Amino acid sequence: MPIVRISLMKGKPEGFGKKVTEVVYGTMVDTINVPPKDNFQVITEHDKESLIYDPDYLNIPRTDGVIFIQITLNEGRTVELKKAFYKTLAERLHQELGVRMEEVFINLVEVKKENWSFGNGIAQYAQ
Amino acid sequence: MPIVRISLMKGKPEGFGKKVTEVVYGTMVDTINVPPKDNFQVITEHDKESLIYDPDYLNIPRTDGVIFIQITLNEGRTVELKKAFYKTLAERLHQELGVRMEEVFINLVEVKKENWSFGNGIAQYAQ
Amino acid sequence: MPIVRISLMKGKPEGFGKKVTEVVYGTMVDTINVPPKDNFQVITEHDKESLIYDPDYLNIPRTDGVIFIQITLNEGRTVELKKAFYKTLAERLHQELGVRMEEVFINLVEVKKENWSFGNGIAQYAQ
Repeated sequence: MPIVRISLMKGKPEGFGKKVTEVVYGTMVDTINVPPKDNFQVITEHDKESLIYDPDYLNIPRTDGVIFIQITLNEGRTVELKKAFYKTLAERLHQELGVRMEEVFINLVEVKKENWSFGNGIAQYAQ
Repeated sequence: MPIVRISLMKGKPEGFGKKVTEVVYGTMVDTINVPPKDNFQVITEHDKESLIYDPDYLNIPRTDGVIFIQITLNEGRTVELKKAFYKTLAERLHQELGVRMEEVFINLVEVKKENWSFGNGIAQYAQ
Repeated sequence: MPIVRISLMKGKPEGFGKKVTEVVYGTMVDTINVPPKDNFQVITEHDKESLIYDPDYLNIPRTDGVIFIQITLNEGRTVELKKAFYKTLAERLHQELGVRMEEVFINLVEVKKENWSFGNGIAQYAQ
């Protein structure tokens, strides 16, 4: 159910964005009960004029390596689950792809379970 | 009021994305009480590395013909209306544009009616 | 906390999109209590076939100068604050960048305060 939008600065190595999506997907499955195979993501790359970030908001130093990860998903997960997701995602992006943990910007948008159709014109999650 | 974001794989025929927006708009007007002329949409095309989908989540076979349709609109529509929208949209995309119904991925994001300004700096839908 | 997505027609003068982000950021700080430095935005440019708008919905005349501004931010701001934001943003885009006020399309998406991580894998706004 999640649809994930990832925004990166241009100039990353070939395949980098795809690898980010794999880490995001695996972390959603492992920490916030996203079902296996529920993997739908869009990655966009931007030049410096088009991806705006503050370089030290909340005293977190950010560079052009910043990654915006915006995820629309079903409502109802606890704050503890969300925290576990953020922590694991930043750690894995660091360990697996060398991303600085400071660069990982995450935002969740929550919706009702009847707000999805995964194909065939059916609301698969509605009662 | 809706703002629609449509994400497609590159390589579609000239004008295909525009035709998808016309079907989405017409279906919103016909099934979920979107006012005529309330038509605001953004289409983006992506390469294979940048548009990620599972090829059989929920046993629905998807191909590079997949279309992600994410719609931000006012809250309050019933589950029945949403179901009618999904069904009609998938059927029309199939009938009018030859899209496989399995490829039609839809997500709704609901907001309050005061969360829009359609121009002139006014919240046209607020009381 | 806000993440801002700005969608423009291609062909604007060099640096125009960046200037729009500066006006949006300043207006958020001045009118809706967004903290200084909380500035995260993505700008995309589109051709005529990919940025769809109605040229007179609600009797507001729009042209290819239309600007879609979609902002995800924390829930809880009053209708009065939102109205002040829309008014000031449209006025400033007009005064500072020569944008017609009719072209300024704004949408807010509200989320919970625990739905953000600004880096380091921490939910900085959660209790």
